[in-house]
Amino acid sequence: MNTSAGTSAPSFSSPRLLDGIRGPADVKALAADQLPQLAREIRNEIIAVTASNGGHVGPNLGVVELTLALHRVFTTPDDQFVFDVSHQGYVHKLLTGRGGEFFRKLRQTGGASGFLYRAESTHDSFGAGHAGTALSAALGMATARDLRGTNEHVVALCGDAAFTCGITLEALNNVVSSTKRLVVILNDNEWSIAKNVGALSKYLNRLSTNSTYNKVHHDLEKFFTGLPGGQDMHRLWVKWKRETKDFFVESSLFEKFGLRYLGPIDGHNLEELVKNLEFAKNCDTPVILHVITKKGKGLDAAIAHPEKFHGASPYDPLTGESLKPAVAPIAPPAPNYQDVMGKAMVRFAKANPAIVGITGAMPSGTGLSHLAAECPKQFFDVGIAEEHAVIFAAGLATKGIRPVVAIYSTFLQRGYDPIIHDVALQNLPVTFVMDRAGLSPNDGPTHHGLFDLAYLRPVPNATIMQPKDEDELVDMMHTSLQLPGPGFIRYPRGAGLGVKIKESPATLPIGQAEVLKQGSNIMIWALGSMVQDALALAARLEATENISVGVVNARFIKPLDRTLLLSQAACIPLIVTMEDHVLAGGFGSAALEALQEADCPAAVERIGWPDTFVEHGSSQNILRAAHGLSPDAIHQRVADRWRNRHAARVEANA
Amino acid sequence: MNTSAGTSAPSFSSPRLLDGIRGPADVKALAADQLPQLAREIRNEIIAVTASNGGHVGPNLGVVELTLALHRVFTTPDDQFVFDVSHQGYVHKLLTGRGGEFFRKLRQTGGASGFLYRAESTHDSFGAGHAGTALSAALGMATARDLRGTNEHVVALCGDAAFTCGITLEALNNVVSSTKRLVVILNDNEWSIAKNVGALSKYLNRLSTNSTYNKVHHDLEKFFTGLPGGQDMHRLWVKWKRETKDFFVESSLFEKFGLRYLGPIDGHNLEELVKNLEFAKNCDTPVILHVITKKGKGLDAAIAHPEKFHGASPYDPLTGESLKPAVAPIAPPAPNYQDVMGKAMVRFAKANPAIVGITGAMPSGTGLSHLAAECPKQFFDVGIAEEHAVIFAAGLATKGIRPVVAIYSTFLQRGYDPIIHDVALQNLPVTFVMDRAGLSPNDGPTHHGLFDLAYLRPVPNATIMQPKDEDELVDMMHTSLQLPGPGFIRYPRGAGLGVKIKESPATLPIGQAEVLKQGSNIMIWALGSMVQDALALAARLEATENISVGVVNARFIKPLDRTLLLSQAACIPLIVTMEDHVLAGGFGSAALEALQEADCPAAVERIGWPDTFVEHGSSQNILRAAHGLSPDAIHQRVADRWRNRHAARVEANA
Repeated sequence: MNTSAGTSAPSFSSPRLLDGIRGPADVKALAADQLPQLAREIRNEIIAVTASNGGHVGPNLGVVELTLALHRVFTTPDDQFVFDVSHQGYVHKLLTGRGGEFFRKLRQTGGASGFLYRAESTHDSFGAGHAGTALSAALGMATARDLRGTNEHVVALCGDAAFTCGITLEALNNVVSSTKRLVVILNDNEWSIAKNVGALSKYLNRLSTNSTYNKVHHDLEKFFTGLPGGQDMHRLWVKWKRETKDFFVESSLFEKFGLRYLGPIDGHNLEELVKNLEFAKNCDTPVILHVITKKGKGLDAAIAHPEKFHGASPYDPLTGESLKPAVAPIAPPAPNYQDVMGKAMVRFAKANPAIVGITGAMPSGTGLSHLAAECPKQFFDVGIAEEHAVIFAAGLATKGIRPVVAIYSTFLQRGYDPIIHDVALQNLPVTFVMDRAGLSPNDGPTHHGLFDLAYLRPVPNATIMQPKDEDELVDMMHTSLQLPGPGFIRYPRGAGLGVKIKESPATLPIGQAEVLKQGSNIMIWALGSMVQDALALAARLEATENISVGVVNARFIKPLDRTLLLSQAACIPLIVTMEDHVLAGGFGSAALEALQEADCPAAVERIGWPDTFVEHGSSQNILRAAHGLSPDAIHQRVADRWRNRHAARVEANA
Repeated sequence: MNTSAGTSAPSFSSPRLLDGIRGPADVKALAADQLPQLAREIRNEIIAVTASNGGHVGPNLGVVELTLALHRVFTTPDDQFVFDVSHQGYVHKLLTGRGGEFFRKLRQTGGASGFLYRAESTHDSFGAGHAGTALSAALGMATARDLRGTNEHVVALCGDAAFTCGITLEALNNVVSSTKRLVVILNDNEWSIAKNVGALSKYLNRLSTNSTYNKVHHDLEKFFTGLPGGQDMHRLWVKWKRETKDFFVESSLFEKFGLRYLGPIDGHNLEELVKNLEFAKNCDTPVILHVITKKGKGLDAAIAHPEKFHGASPYDPLTGESLKPAVAPIAPPAPNYQDVMGKAMVRFAKANPAIVGITGAMPSGTGLSHLAAECPKQFFDVGIAEEHAVIFAAGLATKGIRPVVAIYSTFLQRGYDPIIHDVALQNLPVTFVMDRAGLSPNDGPTHHGLFDLAYLRPVPNATIMQPKDEDELVDMMHTSLQLPGPGFIRYPRGAGLGVKIKESPATLPIGQAEVLKQGSNIMIWALGSMVQDALALAARLEATENISVGVVNARFIKPLDRTLLLSQAACIPLIVTMEDHVLAGGFGSAALEALQEADCPAAVERIGWPDTFVEHGSSQNILRAAHGLSPDAIHQRVADRWRNRHAARVEANA
């Protein structure tokens, strides 16, 4: 950060231009011919940092020139950029004072968030981690500007996949009635995380590969006026344009929505980008720039494997190979829950052609890519369209199909109304597999799955489960696929326990918990991923308090095993609940409700996440410790509670 | 129902044809020239029943011929019709064995639901009450058919307003990749509940009023080939078509999504409808029929006042005047909460230009029509687009605007993810006013607002309130408009208590409840609309049990007034919570959580709705009684609990 502002000519031996960029003014101060050098340095920085930390490699390498051009033409924070999903914001961060050590700790505790984040910088006008929100937010900002009579610019930067999302389309329908001035960048790289899907994607492809709309328009005019007949033909052209009215002049889809369309534009040509952005900046009508970018540009491996390098774990920047742990593990690594789910789907789907899998643009992340590969006719990728995914599943289920909808816990929030209104109210047998329930440490608050139990528990007809290990996940899928109504299975990000998957899955008795260890002083009711922690906690409490502590694998959040809970509560002084979920309305609250309904005055201690948005961090353990959920802290809390309770009882009996 | 199947020639003295319609086969058996008579009878029946019961008058009067044509061409239940929102399903009900007394009890206990309902008839393939789901559901059904290799037809019937909803647009993007055979009816009457909004609405208007797409296409070909030059000109036409590729032949918006477009079609011309439906039935590609209908056709008042007659309360069928209660009330009727909210918005907005109101296509229902009339620049109707509405508000809030988003409790489920991801995570000051929290008796399960507390309580940064009367509603709005983050205010359908609205609203201390009546044996914590019931219950308990019972107006669900609750729980044997919300995760659970966290063993009885979808019914009281929530039942429960508790205490002290 001590180098000069970098107005010197670029050379490989000179200090990096990037090190002189302390803010957007420094980008503007560069000569135009220095920008390619800066672009190279930015790409190298992103590759170096993501190779070590993991992160969204491809999307960011694709928008280097685009982001540079944006900062040449507009001036944040006076002007506002709204990045859709905002996993393409690394370049923006590097240009707005968040380079150096802060960027090198990208997605780590104390480092830059992997997403835009209002609390991180005034240059981040709107945060995001879920797709499809940028156009709506930008429209709000533009409208606020119009209401206040100020004059700044608002730019929404949306990927082509954002246009598979209903929110973007709702916003598109409102652009013209909301404001006369808005710049929308359609960053078209033909990918969401996987290859983009649907009719709009095909349409964009035609727009960018065929002779373009603008070109056709001009060519046609030339063609007409060049015909024998000269003036006559020109009159005919005018007459024809009049007769067809807006069917031709508005033949671009976006112009049907009232936006002026510019494009396609080469997203790696800085001069063309700047020229078009300058033009758009001065338009007195909302305008959409169709910018064609190459996801992963500058890293051969990322271009060859766009899905892997959308959001990558640490990798070798030369070969693109994922990095192995430095020390060879003693046991072979346990499979990820997502792969267990995906492979189980293949087994189920092969055995029963009525079983299908549905994803919202995340075949790899959910693990349904296994199904796509092996049973493509039983696999549906509907785009970033969680609401449609859920209702589509409901429609399938009315006709005897058994759909499995695979959506991360946090993204299923998008499908909440369809879950109630279309699935549960009609009691249709749709199974939901909800990955990333609990923390997604490096991604942070937009990706943690900490609310699902609270929002699903009130839904009538819902059966809600969480497995203690990957074999039980398969049992739960098998069980849910036999339910007469909706089933929800939540499980955490990452590896299972490495247990063997049974050859034939078991059908679990609905609403029955599993006692893993009997205890007489404390019973810990643990949910799924917390079962291992509960066993360790039990052992430690037995050692420190000289008591008997048991553990129950709850299995079902709904219906809760009330019979077992009440029978224990009648004779065991303290019930502890443990869940990877917020405390408000979660699993522990379900236990409280059951005890209250039976008028059982048992003492309960609930362990779960507090009422706050949990930040990003380097690991689960760091974040747990930061929020009072380290094993030590939990042990302390339960031990204190036990001692108080025990003391109270001793006193009462004295 | 005893008349013949009605193949006789229609005459005004003969028995009604409608009385002979026991199912779709009877519709098919009629001669074509009998259909206008049947259409008249259906309109009369709908007018007679809705004039008495209230209901969706306009939408149903508009689709009489369309529904008749559908049942002439297709055969339910083998074929499936999916009605979007399904408030236009009365004609369908009358044609599928649900006429007579059952229809005359429309929206009443024991009568026909106001919406399609799978449990009511096999002819109802998919229920709905929220807009925008039909295309997704129909796509699921069509895909299921394709997977199973059967041959039936699936028809989605969507209003033009459904295309302002993101779900419809998500589905539209998926049509072509999902199936080759689907009939979509675009029932275009230019209205949602209010006048339809947005760019698509304007586009549809151009489609239907300009020379049509098909006509332009044909005229152009004629124009070209008719030019001097004959064959040459035809070749030029072909060349031009090739050069412009799909920019012209796909100039219809729907054809960009891969659907074949037919229209516009006169939705009241049975012959034209049948002809086009027959054609669509045999298409080997998804097809959209653009049908122009007149909302309210056959009732002058409904045509003159489409918004009032979208969903009307009982009215005089001759004049269209709303019916007054038969007996004049003693006091002037109290205003509806929605009007109190809307008028308060006018006051706030006039005093502060930064305050704006946002609705999703429901200006009248929410009461924001008052704001629209008085401060049109501070009012936004974004269409049936709840997700966009919430994010648009978030965008506004980043720039110092104070948006108030008015969405019914049940429809806010659509905005759940934006509430978390865009508003609460960024702690933006958006106020949500949630009408219809509690029951909407005549509408039924799609419209009850019984889940909002459970899904909002886990959201960090949220402040959640419910007023005991309409004056406190204004106080809460005033309070929320000063919060640094999101505020949620829920209130019931219908009239307030008739209390006077203060000239200057009060700012309520955040998280402080209001003790209305002190008690020493039982304290009832009542939420909003339950406060009056709680006062009555307290008086009754004092009389029957000879005890002292107090009442707290909780005001805040979050943050809950823990200080007061814990201080009471320390000395009062029984705490009762009362809420117009499901018990799972609701207000009572918040109380349980607070008591558990303080290790307070107070006895609690929670009164609220059980874990089931509540049906439609004639009144709140009927539905409450059916679910154990009549005043008698509640009194019984609390009295029993008190006696048990009291007995236990006496025993313990003995």
